[in-house]
Amino acid sequence: MKISLAEINSKVGDLKYNANLIKKHADIANKNGAEILVTPELSLCGYPPEDLLLEKEFIDRCHYYLIEIAEKFPKIKIIVGHPRRKNKLLYNSISLLYRGKINKVYDKQELPNYGVFDEKRYFSPGKKPGIFKHKGKIFGLLICEDIWEMGPLEELNKLNVEYVICVNASPYEFNKTKNKFNIIQNRLNKLNDLNLIYLNSVGGQDELLFDGNSFITKPKKHNVNNLTFFSGQFISQNIIADFSKKDHIKITRKCEKFPFHRKILEDPIDQRDSLNKERYLIYNLLNGLLLAMKDYVEKNSIKKLFLGLSGGIDSAVVLFIASKIVSKENLTAIMMPSKFTSKASKDDAKKLSSNLGVNYKIIPIQKHIKIFEATFKNDFKGLGKGIAEQNIQARIRGMILMAYANKFNGMVLATGNKSEMAVGYSTIYGDMVGGFSILKDVPKTMVYKIANEINYKEIIIPQRIIDREPSAELTENQIDKDSLPSYEILDKIIDLHIEKNYSQKELIKFGFSRKLVQKVVRLVKTSEFKRRQSAPGPKITSKAFGKDRRYPITNKFQL
Amino acid sequence: MKISLAEINSKVGDLKYNANLIKKHADIANKNGAEILVTPELSLCGYPPEDLLLEKEFIDRCHYYLIEIAEKFPKIKIIVGHPRRKNKLLYNSISLLYRGKINKVYDKQELPNYGVFDEKRYFSPGKKPGIFKHKGKIFGLLICEDIWEMGPLEELNKLNVEYVICVNASPYEFNKTKNKFNIIQNRLNKLNDLNLIYLNSVGGQDELLFDGNSFITKPKKHNVNNLTFFSGQFISQNIIADFSKKDHIKITRKCEKFPFHRKILEDPIDQRDSLNKERYLIYNLLNGLLLAMKDYVEKNSIKKLFLGLSGGIDSAVVLFIASKIVSKENLTAIMMPSKFTSKASKDDAKKLSSNLGVNYKIIPIQKHIKIFEATFKNDFKGLGKGIAEQNIQARIRGMILMAYANKFNGMVLATGNKSEMAVGYSTIYGDMVGGFSILKDVPKTMVYKIANEINYKEIIIPQRIIDREPSAELTENQIDKDSLPSYEILDKIIDLHIEKNYSQKELIKFGFSRKLVQKVVRLVKTSEFKRRQSAPGPKITSKAFGKDRRYPITNKFQL
Repeated sequence: MKISLAEINSKVGDLKYNANLIKKHADIANKNGAEILVTPELSLCGYPPEDLLLEKEFIDRCHYYLIEIAEKFPKIKIIVGHPRRKNKLLYNSISLLYRGKINKVYDKQELPNYGVFDEKRYFSPGKKPGIFKHKGKIFGLLICEDIWEMGPLEELNKLNVEYVICVNASPYEFNKTKNKFNIIQNRLNKLNDLNLIYLNSVGGQDELLFDGNSFITKPKKHNVNNLTFFSGQFISQNIIADFSKKDHIKITRKCEKFPFHRKILEDPIDQRDSLNKERYLIYNLLNGLLLAMKDYVEKNSIKKLFLGLSGGIDSAVVLFIASKIVSKENLTAIMMPSKFTSKASKDDAKKLSSNLGVNYKIIPIQKHIKIFEATFKNDFKGLGKGIAEQNIQARIRGMILMAYANKFNGMVLATGNKSEMAVGYSTIYGDMVGGFSILKDVPKTMVYKIANEINYKEIIIPQRIIDREPSAELTENQIDKDSLPSYEILDKIIDLHIEKNYSQKELIKFGFSRKLVQKVVRLVKTSEFKRRQSAPGPKITSKAFGKDRRYPITNKFQL
Repeated sequence: MKISLAEINSKVGDLKYNANLIKKHADIANKNGAEILVTPELSLCGYPPEDLLLEKEFIDRCHYYLIEIAEKFPKIKIIVGHPRRKNKLLYNSISLLYRGKINKVYDKQELPNYGVFDEKRYFSPGKKPGIFKHKGKIFGLLICEDIWEMGPLEELNKLNVEYVICVNASPYEFNKTKNKFNIIQNRLNKLNDLNLIYLNSVGGQDELLFDGNSFITKPKKHNVNNLTFFSGQFISQNIIADFSKKDHIKITRKCEKFPFHRKILEDPIDQRDSLNKERYLIYNLLNGLLLAMKDYVEKNSIKKLFLGLSGGIDSAVVLFIASKIVSKENLTAIMMPSKFTSKASKDDAKKLSSNLGVNYKIIPIQKHIKIFEATFKNDFKGLGKGIAEQNIQARIRGMILMAYANKFNGMVLATGNKSEMAVGYSTIYGDMVGGFSILKDVPKTMVYKIANEINYKEIIIPQRIIDREPSAELTENQIDKDSLPSYEILDKIIDLHIEKNYSQKELIKFGFSRKLVQKVVRLVKTSEFKRRQSAPGPKITSKAFGKDRRYPITNKFQL
């Protein structure tokens, strides 16, 4: 018995495109003798459709395409994820299509409504287990959160299912895979001898990034090595799993010829060298960021990209990623030096652009600064130079980038990282300008690791960019450390405070000074207004800014 | 028997401040012989606390202050709204404090998770009705959504309650009051002869605005006129309701001496003239906008405000509102003319500033434009002038405003309206710059009505600002109608499409041309990326942009 798993990369709202994608996978499944085709959670409409779900016609159109797929492939069983309306309620459902009809429906029972999820905003919970028979074997169905709550899986077990198919749209988080798999293994170990088929979608959608990494496994008590399979991260593919042998699963991968269904990084990093775990995780993260940017750009039909290249590490990494997404003539890096821009920055920016072969422009902003200085001369007299003057420089740069983007119908890439976003070390309407912020959830220390990974085989990012003390270069001899703790320390505090939710009091117990903790916590709180006006970027940690973390701007809570 | 209703204006997270506010109201209640003091939903922490609710210490501190209030006022029954943790679950609760302790607890049963609400993200639903006895009478408790779902009220009725106390944090919507009241009246009419006491909070919190408008009523079958009382909108006050007479409720209002607890608009509009309904609604809306801005500014400790005065109607209305919020020396209007700025705009801006007595600056931007033009001269050669050039002007203005705000530690007020926000007729990082966007949910046609209301007694906004054809003045002889339908038509489409959720197909059935509908719907969809980076502003319609309407940016749904 062969089952085909389609790790498809749906486009939210593009029902026709998604339906065609499912049909192409049905063709592959057919050709390879698979009897069942499985597609991810809400595969037909993309995940998350958000308030599109409140539109009646959106739900109607999903039904239309569902039937269209069913009619076209009467001979193969196809599992499709879609929203379903019944008695004025909406469900997050999967339908088993067979013989030209909807043969079986299962409604998701556990609706996540935490973190980035808002499923209770839209859906009602299903009440019944989903079961179907195929060739005398009992199959059970689950959707994503169903498997993370105690109950639905155990119920299927009681019903003596032999195969559990769990379809997902489960967002990527750095280093989550192993933990996730172990939890499920421990649960399985208490159950009958069943096969778990866990299928996840692949692709980027606004703030979310789905990593695939589908797997097939059995309870640990068996010799699972030969019965466990991982599909890998960020590769949209079709996996034909043959369950006819008792002692192993035979896997065939089909991933060519589909849009988005190819490995997007042409191996600049040699995977065979990835002996140490951290390097491998960083390599996968980089792959994920590439996919996130690629999908944002392609799904929004953006052709040209612009970014400000400062000579620092963030814009260097963003430029590298962008250079893999669009062709070189569609990517323009602009260095906009002021009198505070060091020669090192100018040289390194130029070198990097040349290494990557992208368009490179130098637009000095000293004249622009002068005009603004003259504008404020009288009103700012005697007040000394400060943040206002620094922000003016960042905003001139933002303006220049936006002018190019507007003129050539392109998009500016924001280059800020999570550490900056956390403490507001950024200029709103200045360096925060952009349509997509690929490093938004990547802490600065991780940006360095990515840069090292990019440089692993050959120096692409000039080494000095990585080695130099980070500086915004907005005033004389400025370095980030003048205003902030070292990024090693800052990122530890951010991890504990933002991602793990430790309070000020608890942070002090971790050994950070009270003064430092108070400063960081205060900066995080008072920067909320900036983050609200920031570009979206993909969640890659356990708690990202954006829909994952919803703090009031007006917030007077203090300890 | 006297009950004191405290329409308090809590500050989210400022538990000490809120506790003190409740204590002051307890003093008032005591002094006026009230036996029960009622405060709104989540009065102790403010509504909505959002992800602060996920912090353990936040919940602990709420408990601490709850006990502090109980101990200080052992003789009066005080109803306080607060989050409550029990067995690792969180509830949206009210406690009845009496004799120094928590005497009774009620957990909200119906948790709204639609529109602007995310209560299922945080809270578990209560399962039991809330009942207490006072002087031999049975009281029932409800929290906000409890009264809008069939069930909890009817259950209290079965338990023979004589008084139902429903505490709320129910956001304002234009013209919602009467409908809301009628729905409840119809429900009451099917019940026993009970008294309903409906208390709502007052104040602004980020995107939300609470209007008070508490009421007391009985089922309609009685002669309700003498037994019905409305507190009015946007006045934070303490209402002492004496229920000792059978045929009427005796009301005493106490609203002096509390911060935020005064009527904030010193009657520039004579309420006695408000004979026609629409004028009265607009007058109340204006009051609400004043409170929303005042609360955002004061609760965020912002001292100085800056805005760009274009000579158009939006910035005129925003300036009027701001002039009532901060003292005149803390408010600066800046006119930033280019060669496209008409004499009428310059004259009217000046006149308005002088009418309001605020700081007024003229900063021509022609020189700045020239520098940027020179910057792009080569690269934009032969491409003609367009949006890029228009945006440059708007962005220079944004930069100038931000420089003042940064230098003087103030905030820029964004001046865009809902019609512009809907179709993206605005420049991101240009005229969209600002910390708060008071007209964000106010359609352009309503902005005109507000302007007329402001001018009702005397001309404050020069009449020409109201009468002139709206224009962005970003190029030669430009008027909004060149790019958009008339605002009368656009606002009707926006009302139907955004607020009432009618699809493109349905809009055409309303009689709008297919071409126009397609254009507007497309503009709404493609402007989502701009709205995501826009400043917050108060929801005043049934569906506002922001947390009320959550659309994907990457969205390919088309009909």
